[in-house]
Amino acid sequence: MVVAFLTDYGLRDDFVGICHLVIERAAPGTRVVDLTHAIARHDIRRGALALRRAARVAPAQVVLLAVVDPGVGGERRAVAIRAGERFLVGPDNGLLLPAARALGGAAEAVEISNSPHRLTPVSATFHGRDLFAPVAAVLAAGAPLDEVGDTIDPASLADLELPVGRILAVGRAEAHVVDIDTFGNITLDLDDPRILTEIVRVNGRRAAAATTFADADPGALLIYIDSSGALALAVNQGSAADALELKPDDEVTIQWTP
Amino acid sequence: MVVAFLTDYGLRDDFVGICHLVIERAAPGTRVVDLTHAIARHDIRRGALALRRAARVAPAQVVLLAVVDPGVGGERRAVAIRAGERFLVGPDNGLLLPAARALGGAAEAVEISNSPHRLTPVSATFHGRDLFAPVAAVLAAGAPLDEVGDTIDPASLADLELPVGRILAVGRAEAHVVDIDTFGNITLDLDDPRILTEIVRVNGRRAAAATTFADADPGALLIYIDSSGALALAVNQGSAADALELKPDDEVTIQWTP
Amino acid sequence: MVVAFLTDYGLRDDFVGICHLVIERAAPGTRVVDLTHAIARHDIRRGALALRRAARVAPAQVVLLAVVDPGVGGERRAVAIRAGERFLVGPDNGLLLPAARALGGAAEAVEISNSPHRLTPVSATFHGRDLFAPVAAVLAAGAPLDEVGDTIDPASLADLELPVGRILAVGRAEAHVVDIDTFGNITLDLDDPRILTEIVRVNGRRAAAATTFADADPGALLIYIDSSGALALAVNQGSAADALELKPDDEVTIQWTP
Repeated sequence: MVVAFLTDYGLRDDFVGICHLVIERAAPGTRVVDLTHAIARHDIRRGALALRRAARVAPAQVVLLAVVDPGVGGERRAVAIRAGERFLVGPDNGLLLPAARALGGAAEAVEISNSPHRLTPVSATFHGRDLFAPVAAVLAAGAPLDEVGDTIDPASLADLELPVGRILAVGRAEAHVVDIDTFGNITLDLDDPRILTEIVRVNGRRAAAATTFADADPGALLIYIDSSGALALAVNQGSAADALELKPDDEVTIQWTP
Repeated sequence: MVVAFLTDYGLRDDFVGICHLVIERAAPGTRVVDLTHAIARHDIRRGALALRRAARVAPAQVVLLAVVDPGVGGERRAVAIRAGERFLVGPDNGLLLPAARALGGAAEAVEISNSPHRLTPVSATFHGRDLFAPVAAVLAAGAPLDEVGDTIDPASLADLELPVGRILAVGRAEAHVVDIDTFGNITLDLDDPRILTEIVRVNGRRAAAATTFADADPGALLIYIDSSGALALAVNQGSAADALELKPDDEVTIQWTP
Repeated sequence: MVVAFLTDYGLRDDFVGICHLVIERAAPGTRVVDLTHAIARHDIRRGALALRRAARVAPAQVVLLAVVDPGVGGERRAVAIRAGERFLVGPDNGLLLPAARALGGAAEAVEISNSPHRLTPVSATFHGRDLFAPVAAVLAAGAPLDEVGDTIDPASLADLELPVGRILAVGRAEAHVVDIDTFGNITLDLDDPRILTEIVRVNGRRAAAATTFADADPGALLIYIDSSGALALAVNQGSAADALELKPDDEVTIQWTP
């Protein structure tokens, strides 16, 4: 079973590498796929959304290991979850549940703060190394869930309220910036393709309904269904985030002629 | 067989991680080596040069998976190529052919837009995930080339005109900036070691012919044969690109006393 | 055996990817864990400290491959070291010895500049590719140490003087900035928990003795034992390095009420 690994650690330090090493130590031969380590520091929502995207293309045998953990060393629980045949490991702060839901829902869960597989003494600030990485490793190697922690009620797991766009009236919708990629492309929390009509305005600005970037002139704003299946905004050979001055969670008004 | 993976996706998003996950899903156990994901956005030439460098040290069993794809979702073909016992997968925009040539030339090719191994529906903007990654995975797992796409004529593959430096006269050459690394070292499109004489001028500036950085004083400009076998410029403990104010593809005049 | 890989190459170029490819070529199937490639250019001390951190959590079967090599192509030796059952490979400039010591000390060593496993011709500037990577690969695949180079005296290996903080008197200590992570957290070269009393001043500024970040108010300076077991400084949801205007190797005065 492979471990898919997501954090907000960045790649300027050796935090990620140390976790890889601990996984190898806990279960030699475990393969690890790095999903991303560039989640903005402490941004649980962005982490949860990226983890959910990964869940949607996940292989049948996988442990999703995610660490975006502003409450490390505090009261929040550390958990491992089973969803179907897959597992999720991380802090119980809402990071894991949207992905678990995409995998069919949390069927079983354990609290792992005192896991027999933890590295002792567990530091107060680096649970990725001391708790989450070794537990993910032994799950990937086949350990049963109830051997890595103490059973808890899956219904007690922390959930996350994700923004939801909505159609207010025919020809008018309210959406939010879910994500901005490195090219300035904006994913919205709306996926209704009926909006893609001949005349669309985004925050008052004309946007061309398109299938792909090359459909629009360089510099033109376009609205399209992106690779996650959501409505998205882009500027061909430019940045929609810059053009519209938008940042994550900002509200966006969309008008169209049905 | 290992997959060697190069893109312009960057590491700030999860594009690369998602492709890794799709490879694992398409052919569990496939190993992936990341070559680089920091090719400048849409810079096919820089991507082709890096892929060719990789081809020159490639193991006997490898699939080179490369995605620098400004035309994604448009007319350009998506292809898989066999060169000797190795494979290349990516957009048919010139990115692949210099590397294929370094591996002995494209012997067979297929168009993979309707590959049975693609993820459906194929998105218009993320062919790395939906097309290239799964096809590379099954090739690495041993699938025959004609099973992953429709046979096309290798002679029809898009090629790339790469810059070529030349000696204009004894003591005078014209070259171009092929690549600038993160330290500001400049690779030129010239490899004649006879230029490395006692008095060399680069764009009028004196450069010390050297074997390695430590041969020159800190801050001094040096000209040497770099690790790719090409003539190169560096400043010991500094940046030649800054010192000479050069960027990729710029022309450089070299004079020397034979 | 796994190869754990640390360099100052960065991820903007393909140096790291090329080394991965060479490892695969030299010993197909070798697994590689990237520790970090973001050591500041030529900063042997920072590299040595990171490698030592890795050594402390290293699995039983590992080759630590480290390249921070300002003297590449010059006089410094290229070496492979055995420490217990583990190996270290890199330039003989002090980078390796603190980690070797953490693994029980250098038991055997060889000079590898003329290793039969090197790629020829060895370039003057990229020993990572031509020397260190292939030698690490064959060691990981089980080659005996004396087959990859010429035996040298382990006592002749270059060592590194690392800063050492000290308690000057009861209530007064002098320390140094060992490392600053991407969040601005500062590791000091002192690990005496008796300093963590009710009133602590760092360079005259009040710091709250804490177990983890959440123990202090946002913006407050805190002093704690970090995940490496050392005394450290942080600002909750901020940067201690910015707040105290400190950089690596700077001296820090700590006062406390015993």
